[in-house]
Amino acid sequence: MGRVSGYVRSDKGCAFGSHRAEGGLPQPAQRLDACLPIWSNELLIDVEMLNLDSSSMRQIADSCGSSTEKIKDRIAEIVQARGKMHNPVTDSGGVAIGRVAAIGPHFPDQTLHIGDRVCTMVSLSLTPLALDRIHAVNCQTGQIAIQGHAILFESGLFARVPEDIPLEIALALLDVAGAPGTVIRTVQPGDTVCVMGAGKAGTLCLFAAREALGKTGRLIAVDGKAEVVDAIRALGIADEAIQIDLREPIAAFEMLREATNGTLADLTVNTTNIAGTEGASILSTKQGGRIFFFSMATSFTRAALTAEGAGRDVQMLIGNGYTAGWVDTTLRLYRANLKLAEFLKRRLQY
Amino acid sequence: MGRVSGYVRSDKGCAFGSHRAEGGLPQPAQRLDACLPIWSNELLIDVEMLNLDSSSMRQIADSCGSSTEKIKDRIAEIVQARGKMHNPVTDSGGVAIGRVAAIGPHFPDQTLHIGDRVCTMVSLSLTPLALDRIHAVNCQTGQIAIQGHAILFESGLFARVPEDIPLEIALALLDVAGAPGTVIRTVQPGDTVCVMGAGKAGTLCLFAAREALGKTGRLIAVDGKAEVVDAIRALGIADEAIQIDLREPIAAFEMLREATNGTLADLTVNTTNIAGTEGASILSTKQGGRIFFFSMATSFTRAALTAEGAGRDVQMLIGNGYTAGWVDTTLRLYRANLKLAEFLKRRLQY
Repeated sequence: MGRVSGYVRSDKGCAFGSHRAEGGLPQPAQRLDACLPIWSNELLIDVEMLNLDSSSMRQIADSCGSSTEKIKDRIAEIVQARGKMHNPVTDSGGVAIGRVAAIGPHFPDQTLHIGDRVCTMVSLSLTPLALDRIHAVNCQTGQIAIQGHAILFESGLFARVPEDIPLEIALALLDVAGAPGTVIRTVQPGDTVCVMGAGKAGTLCLFAAREALGKTGRLIAVDGKAEVVDAIRALGIADEAIQIDLREPIAAFEMLREATNGTLADLTVNTTNIAGTEGASILSTKQGGRIFFFSMATSFTRAALTAEGAGRDVQMLIGNGYTAGWVDTTLRLYRANLKLAEFLKRRLQY
Repeated sequence: MGRVSGYVRSDKGCAFGSHRAEGGLPQPAQRLDACLPIWSNELLIDVEMLNLDSSSMRQIADSCGSSTEKIKDRIAEIVQARGKMHNPVTDSGGVAIGRVAAIGPHFPDQTLHIGDRVCTMVSLSLTPLALDRIHAVNCQTGQIAIQGHAILFESGLFARVPEDIPLEIALALLDVAGAPGTVIRTVQPGDTVCVMGAGKAGTLCLFAAREALGKTGRLIAVDGKAEVVDAIRALGIADEAIQIDLREPIAAFEMLREATNGTLADLTVNTTNIAGTEGASILSTKQGGRIFFFSMATSFTRAALTAEGAGRDVQMLIGNGYTAGWVDTTLRLYRANLKLAEFLKRRLQY
C-alpha cells in the first residue's frame, strides 16, 4: 500500500465517530475531520472508487449541466469543505470501495488483512474522506474512480468485496443492498407487491419479492421511463410492468387500482430518485398496508401529512440501509439469477 | 350560520381534492383554491379556531420575535398566498375546529347536521382555508382564534367535538391523537418504552404506553426542559423522567443506556418539535427495536443515514396522523385519567 500512512494512534475514539465531528454524530455534522493518523478503533481504507447515491449523482450532474470537469470540481469542492462526500442539497452520500490500509488494534473485526478489498456499508455522508485525485466520473452509474482515503469508525459497517463479482457490479449491488434485504424478510406469500422505480435498487427488490412470493401473489413494477419498463418486461420477473409518472399521484393511483383489480398493494416499495412520489405510494397502498421509502428524495412531512390527508392507515417505514444479513441476501440474489446479473451489467455498461 | 354561503355545486370534485390543487395532491401543492361554493362531495366548515402544529407555531413565533401582531400578519400572509395554513418553512399545518355550514349531498357522512361542531383530522397543510379575521394568538398552545371557512374533501377525516370537553382541550387532544393511537396498539407488555418530548403528544403517549404496559415493562420520559421533567415526575406516570438535550445524541445515548440498565428501548417515540433529535432516538433503541417519529421536524435522510451509520437494524416509522380508532382512544385516555386532564388544562392555561 504505502500511499497512506499505516500509523495508528494508541487511543480510542468514540464508537460512533463523534471525535471527528466536534462531539456530535458524523451524519448531521457540517464538517468531519478526515486527518490521519487513525485512532485505535478505526479502519483506514485506500479508496479506489465511490458510488454516489442516485439522488446525489443526479443533482450534481443536473447542476453542472452534465459537464464532467464541472462535476469533478463540484465533488472535490464538497469533500474539501465537508471532509466527507455529503451532498448538501440532497443530504445524502453513497458508499466507497477500496483496500484496507491500516487496522486499528481496537477495531472490532480483527480478521481483516492489509490489502483486503472492502466496501463501506455506511453512508459517505458520515464517512471521513480525503481525495488526492478524481480519475473518472460515470453519471449513469454514479461511480467515481478516485484516489484517496476513507476512515471507518468502530460502529461502521463494511462488506468484504467478493472476488467472483466485478468491482463495479459489487459496488453497485452493495450500495443498495438494504432495500432487497428488507423486502425479502417482509413479503408474505400471496401479497400484492408494488415496486416503484426500476433502477438497481428497484430491480433487486423485484427479485427479492419474487423469491419471497414464489408463484403466489402479484408483483407489479412501475417506472416513469418507457425503455426501463420494456427492460423489466423482458426480464419476466414481474407479473406486470407499467409506465407511470409517479409525480402524478391521482393518475398513478387509478392505474394501480386497475392493475390490482381494485385491491391496491399490501406492500409498496419506493426506490425512485425523484421528489414528489410520496402521494403515489400512499394512494396505491391498501388500508393496513405498508410502504418502504428507500428513496433519498422522500420528504418526511409530505409522507406523514399526505397519508393523513388521504385517510390511509398505512405503516410507512424509513428505509434503513442496514438490515441484518442484507449483504448475503443481495449477493445471493445476484448469483442465483443470471438474468439479474446480465441486466445489471447492461445498466452499468460493464 | 349565514356567514358563509350554504350553496353547493351539483358536480363532484376529486375524492382527494386535486380539483382544488391544479390536478395534484393538495398537501404538496403550492396553492389551493379555497373559493366557494363547495362541490357536491365536500363539507364546509365555519372555522372558530386553528391549532397550528407545534413545529410551525414555534417557527412562526421565532421568526416574528414573538410579536403577536407580526404573528397575525404572517399567518394571514401564508393563508392569503397558499389558500391553506401550510407553513412553507416547516412544511406542516395543524387542525381546525368549527361548525358545519354546508354538507354536500355526496359527502360520505350524511349523519352530520348544520351547526355540529367538528374538528378536521387532516392537516391544515392540505385543507382549503380562507380567513376573514384573526382574533387572538396563543403562542404557548398554537391556538389561533379566527373567523373564516375551511373545506373538507370527500377523503378528508373529521371528528365530532364532544360536548363534555372544553373546546381548547378538545382541539389540543385531537391535533395529536395519531401518536397515542399508534402507541397503544404497538406497545407489548414487558416492553421498555422511551417517550422523547413531553408536550401534549408526548404526555398522551406516556398514558397510552402505561395503559398497554400495565405494571410491566419500563416507561421512560425524556425532555430538554427541567420544568417539563418536573411536571412529568409529578404525574407519576413514567418509571423515570430524565432531562436530556436530545440534540446531543451521544450524551443522550449514554444517559438512556444507564436508565435502561444497558438494554436500550424496544420502542422509542419521538414527539419533540426540535430538529436534530433523530440520532438520539436511533442510538437509544435496541437492535430489532422500533422508532415512531411523530415530530414534524424529523429529517428523512438524516434518520435513514444515521441508522445505517450507527449499524442499527431498527424499524423507523413515519408517524401517521391517521390510525383507525385514534380519536376514541385519545378521548378515552383523557376521560379516564384525571391527572392527564389536569395536566393538559394547566399546559393550556385553561
